[in-house]
Amino acid sequence: MNAIVLSIGDELVLGLTVDTNSGWLSRELAAIGWNTARHVTVGDDEAAIHAAIVAAAPDCDALLISGGLGPTKDDLTREALARALGQPLEINEKWLARMTEMFQKRGRPMPPSNRVQAMIPRRAEMIANMAGTAAGIEAAMPLRDGGDVCKVFVMPGVPNEMRTMFQRSVAPKLAGAASGATILTRTLHTFGLGESAVGEMLGGLMERSRNPTVGTTVANGVVSVRIAARSGSRREAEETLGQTVAQCLEVLGDLVFGAEEQSLPMVIAELLKKAPVRRVGTAESCTGGLLAKMLTDIAGSSQYFQRGWITYSNEAKIELLDGPARIIEQHGTVSEPTVIAMAESARKKSGSDFGLSISGIAGPDGGSTAKPVGTVCIALADAQTAVARMFSFPGNREMVRDRSAKMALTMLRYHLLGKTMPF
Amino acid sequence: MNAIVLSIGDELVLGLTVDTNSGWLSRELAAIGWNTARHVTVGDDEAAIHAAIVAAAPDCDALLISGGLGPTKDDLTREALARALGQPLEINEKWLARMTEMFQKRGRPMPPSNRVQAMIPRRAEMIANMAGTAAGIEAAMPLRDGGDVCKVFVMPGVPNEMRTMFQRSVAPKLAGAASGATILTRTLHTFGLGESAVGEMLGGLMERSRNPTVGTTVANGVVSVRIAARSGSRREAEETLGQTVAQCLEVLGDLVFGAEEQSLPMVIAELLKKAPVRRVGTAESCTGGLLAKMLTDIAGSSQYFQRGWITYSNEAKIELLDGPARIIEQHGTVSEPTVIAMAESARKKSGSDFGLSISGIAGPDGGSTAKPVGTVCIALADAQTAVARMFSFPGNREMVRDRSAKMALTMLRYHLLGKTMPF
Repeated sequence: MNAIVLSIGDELVLGLTVDTNSGWLSRELAAIGWNTARHVTVGDDEAAIHAAIVAAAPDCDALLISGGLGPTKDDLTREALARALGQPLEINEKWLARMTEMFQKRGRPMPPSNRVQAMIPRRAEMIANMAGTAAGIEAAMPLRDGGDVCKVFVMPGVPNEMRTMFQRSVAPKLAGAASGATILTRTLHTFGLGESAVGEMLGGLMERSRNPTVGTTVANGVVSVRIAARSGSRREAEETLGQTVAQCLEVLGDLVFGAEEQSLPMVIAELLKKAPVRRVGTAESCTGGLLAKMLTDIAGSSQYFQRGWITYSNEAKIELLDGPARIIEQHGTVSEPTVIAMAESARKKSGSDFGLSISGIAGPDGGSTAKPVGTVCIALADAQTAVARMFSFPGNREMVRDRSAKMALTMLRYHLLGKTMPF
Repeated sequence: MNAIVLSIGDELVLGLTVDTNSGWLSRELAAIGWNTARHVTVGDDEAAIHAAIVAAAPDCDALLISGGLGPTKDDLTREALARALGQPLEINEKWLARMTEMFQKRGRPMPPSNRVQAMIPRRAEMIANMAGTAAGIEAAMPLRDGGDVCKVFVMPGVPNEMRTMFQRSVAPKLAGAASGATILTRTLHTFGLGESAVGEMLGGLMERSRNPTVGTTVANGVVSVRIAARSGSRREAEETLGQTVAQCLEVLGDLVFGAEEQSLPMVIAELLKKAPVRRVGTAESCTGGLLAKMLTDIAGSSQYFQRGWITYSNEAKIELLDGPARIIEQHGTVSEPTVIAMAESARKKSGSDFGLSISGIAGPDGGSTAKPVGTVCIALADAQTAVARMFSFPGNREMVRDRSAKMALTMLRYHLLGKTMPF
């Protein structure tokens, strides 16, 4: 069964408010076996709302509308729906009485403008609102071809009123109609390879005709793999989802650092806190504190992180190293010997098991032919040894800094796993 | 002129990622006189993308598409657009060469799957991507009725790539096309007071019937005031906008730290770099490096920032202070005397004009009745004196850390302006 989600409001279409309703509704719909075919957003304009309803109805089994049910002149959803249904608006005495009572309880007379909130199209049904004066509307819209109808549900735009109404009054009706179909999803996260390289590893798993489907997305350098299983039976969806997840994990191996809400800092925290707890100290140049900030994103991080240095200038680096300036003079600040010395110092001075260090050219200035913007050296030291790597990250200053800190965490992650980094 | 914004991605239509592109594009469009008629979101499905393009084109003068330009099999926007235009896909040699070069620079061979990213419909034009391999596409779609065409611009879904491409390559073309009515906007940013307090200061300026309109929005603790002037004449729009901006500035005073794309770190950088250049050193506990990260967000920050300490544990704080542990033992780590000692040490040890320090309870654990989660002490030291303030920030760990770092910057900002903080 296909749904379309229609959101109404000038503030949404002007981009002044982020629309969280559409995404929330899609997730709830998926959980009860409904597929969301599209989201549409229009402003507080009767003609636009009417056109959107008329265009959406033939393409779906249920049209979920939110917004435009308030008492003011810019709330026009009920008028547009009535016109789309070809029915007049009529007062719903039950809701009028309920609203009057709500105002009485608050010791205020009901303003005349609220009366419009009890108007619904003839033959439609009112949906009670537990948290406000905007009643919802349920209607059946006949489609030109044949006896099919599109179910229409109108809910308030205020997120908590919409959510309560959907869960109490709309979801139960849709769950019945879906007759058991389920969509289950699982998202795996990777860092270190580009989207195309991950896509090539997945190969045939990404065929569009497959069920479960496998897709990739990138956000802040993290390439995520999303697996979605659709089936008439929940058990079958769970089974096929599990199978495809296992296939993806087999292909991607340790490249997958986590799933769903897990971030790199969370995964590092879990690995470091595993008995015996191990600690890490940091020394950062171009990232200017971002690596330490990521390590301390997690509550309880004092167990594994206690001390970090931001050595943005050469003098600061020399002082941290507690030794001669020779290494920096000889190899430059962005060099493997320099970051190794920084990581070893950070480890010793912080009394940690590991030292992580970063020095690079975040840009936009400071690049050279030999070391262009994006050149970043990262080192990891433990009690026995230290390794350094030179990377070339694409993008602007913010991206270079973000990828550098994530790559440092990734080097530590592979080390904690006892594995070799595959890139 | 009317635009429609079409976003493509399974992760969007399934509600797994919040769509920030559509709102951003609408705000940018309004700024250059374009009205956004609607937002539409569909999944990674060629038929759905094709249908959305065909349905949108007759309703708008420009169709802005983002997403579905990646190198993997689930990226189908270029195929759907080619079919909607009735043109075959052809390789763009210029972009293919550019991509090959990008991979060469990073010392990796280009995976064969990336080749598809250089395919564009015949007669369409390629739009260069400054930050990634997904080139954009510009095409003109003839409409059935008459000689009209709908301009189509396809951009990557990754927000920063999309934004850069829109500002560099798409906005200049659209700005020329918009004739007649003009919408000019100006956004002022404040930090330190809540949205309702800022709203009360603005008072009658926020009347909805007013032109220019004045509205407020909050993002990450920054309360922004958006002024929008609409007029048939650009000169009139400019004049009335200027008047209302002046009225807002008069009411809000130094609370306004910047406008448009200006951030707190940018403003601090400008103030510190004004001759004579002054330097700041940092000592951070609960923010774990975030304050230093913000100070070094700006290119050229080595002029005013050279050294910072992250003293997450008590031992680290005691070592930084180079003195007896008495202050911390007597007053606790989250106390005004402790942060004053930290700020003074950071100033002296970094050889800076100013020292900034933060110690607090970011949560979710570690709070007490006397010092609940969100209690944060911040100090600012200069050569003569040091001041400390205790704050109580609402929200989760991430919010408390973000507000703490921003408040430290705000304390420094008022000090550099020679003004007293009004909160």
